[in-house]
Amino acid sequence: MRIPDLLPRLLAGDRRALARAISLAEQGGPPARELLAAVYPHAGRAHIVGITGPPGAGKSTLVNALALELRSLGRTVGIVAVDPTSPFSGGAVLGDRIRMQALCGDPGVFIRSMASRGRLGGLSRATADAVALIDAAGFDIALIETVGAGQGEVDIARAAQTTIVVEVPGMGDDVQSIKAGVLEIADLFVVNKADRDGADKTVRQLRSMLHLGGPPADGWEPPVLPAVASAGQGIAEIIAEADRHATHLRAGDGADAHARAAAEGDLRAAVQELAIERLRGPAWDALVAKIVARRGDPYTAAEELLGAL
Amino acid sequence: MRIPDLLPRLLAGDRRALARAISLAEQGGPPARELLAAVYPHAGRAHIVGITGPPGAGKSTLVNALALELRSLGRTVGIVAVDPTSPFSGGAVLGDRIRMQALCGDPGVFIRSMASRGRLGGLSRATADAVALIDAAGFDIALIETVGAGQGEVDIARAAQTTIVVEVPGMGDDVQSIKAGVLEIADLFVVNKADRDGADKTVRQLRSMLHLGGPPADGWEPPVLPAVASAGQGIAEIIAEADRHATHLRAGDGADAHARAAAEGDLRAAVQELAIERLRGPAWDALVAKIVARRGDPYTAAEELLGAL
Repeated sequence: MRIPDLLPRLLAGDRRALARAISLAEQGGPPARELLAAVYPHAGRAHIVGITGPPGAGKSTLVNALALELRSLGRTVGIVAVDPTSPFSGGAVLGDRIRMQALCGDPGVFIRSMASRGRLGGLSRATADAVALIDAAGFDIALIETVGAGQGEVDIARAAQTTIVVEVPGMGDDVQSIKAGVLEIADLFVVNKADRDGADKTVRQLRSMLHLGGPPADGWEPPVLPAVASAGQGIAEIIAEADRHATHLRAGDGADAHARAAAEGDLRAAVQELAIERLRGPAWDALVAKIVARRGDPYTAAEELLGAL
Repeated sequence: MRIPDLLPRLLAGDRRALARAISLAEQGGPPARELLAAVYPHAGRAHIVGITGPPGAGKSTLVNALALELRSLGRTVGIVAVDPTSPFSGGAVLGDRIRMQALCGDPGVFIRSMASRGRLGGLSRATADAVALIDAAGFDIALIETVGAGQGEVDIARAAQTTIVVEVPGMGDDVQSIKAGVLEIADLFVVNKADRDGADKTVRQLRSMLHLGGPPADGWEPPVLPAVASAGQGIAEIIAEADRHATHLRAGDGADAHARAAAEGDLRAAVQELAIERLRGPAWDALVAKIVARRGDPYTAAEELLGAL
């Protein structure tokens, strides 16, 4: 399908056109850029929600429960799973798959898994593109599921307007590790599997950790919500708080600040991709060979290449 | 200290000059590039070993034990800790700190922790720079410690010639998650805390998982080694296997392929950093504002900016 044919179908919310468009975007290069350039002015309306947390926290089950609840409220949902171990990505546990079937065949739900392959270091880019396409296709909410451990995931979280960090009870060590890296990015905490021993303690620990940081600069105090995603418990509360966060962003300058940061990040990524594409060629290969032989260095070579543009 | 003064001291292996140089590199910009360009021809001799695995696998303890053993063999060691929860980064458990004191004050050991801050998405870049500087300062081995979960960590692992993946017994779920993402990058598996129940089973599982993949394309079959890092058990075997891997790389074209990929990655990163630096300014800001207002898109804006170079 050519882009001029694809575009109106995508903007009309056609799910097959959307799947095709994401695949095209993943491949990168001029056609991907042409598509994304055409789509860009139509995006910017969806609420983008990131869901992150350690393996085993039940993120996929939570995403599934949130999607079902959102559908019952009449809202459409696009899901992007970036976790390579997510059942959405094929690494399924049978129970998860059965639960998820309730979503399959519902035209108000679109599910896409992004593998950890593709453009080098470009997973956060590919995710942002997929979210922009889902947004342009008119979905109300985009849910991004990622494993929450490293810098890559923090980068992916930047695409989200609202970031939900999922914990489970009784992982004393993990509360430690959250403190180090993920506390800053959380707009909502969910303590999943809250029917387990120690759930109250984990909720209390997270709350006191949040209080230790003092009053938040942007006036948003992240709530800590217990849930049992597999039983649908606490799901409505999570959606209510996510909505409240979206309202909070729009009321202050949070939404603007996010839009500016996202635009700048998108521009930076586009410049970087385009610069490499234009500079690749015989001169590039010759410079790589010189660097391998340690007769040159990447920084001087980069000056040379950019000077020749 | 000016770069012409810093350089000879760094190349002579002065640890204070090395620390200073890494800080300079972390700041980025023209001085960082000048330094790294000057240093580059002197690097390329160290064996670069990545150590990755989930939180709680005992990576820091293993790094500590490896460093002590390497020192007893008369080899010098530079350690770069990229894990924000690593004791090397300040998130210490008392026992770890005490163990680590054996390394402090030894001029044959250099320890540096890289925080998850600094240049946006640039942690893998900053790590590669730090390793290059350690290498140029004449250290025999560079050990990079990272949390092994996300794409960011996989990118960091690319800087390593030999990647050690650390597991612990009885984490059935984690063996699953390894399968999905980390199996491809492991040159050695270490099952740490092998005095715990289930260690044999974890070793067996990993071995059979590796066999499922069929004979390795590059002729290297990753060994699975039990260890008790806190007691120094199994450490000599890990070093022997890491050495054997280095020899394997040199014997085939593995070392060349790694050097080419590293050179190309370094060149790409340098081009990207330089391009952004040159393009930032009033025109950049105006285009960001247009993109925020959805009156423009990042891809067309990038073409415009690069066309004006």
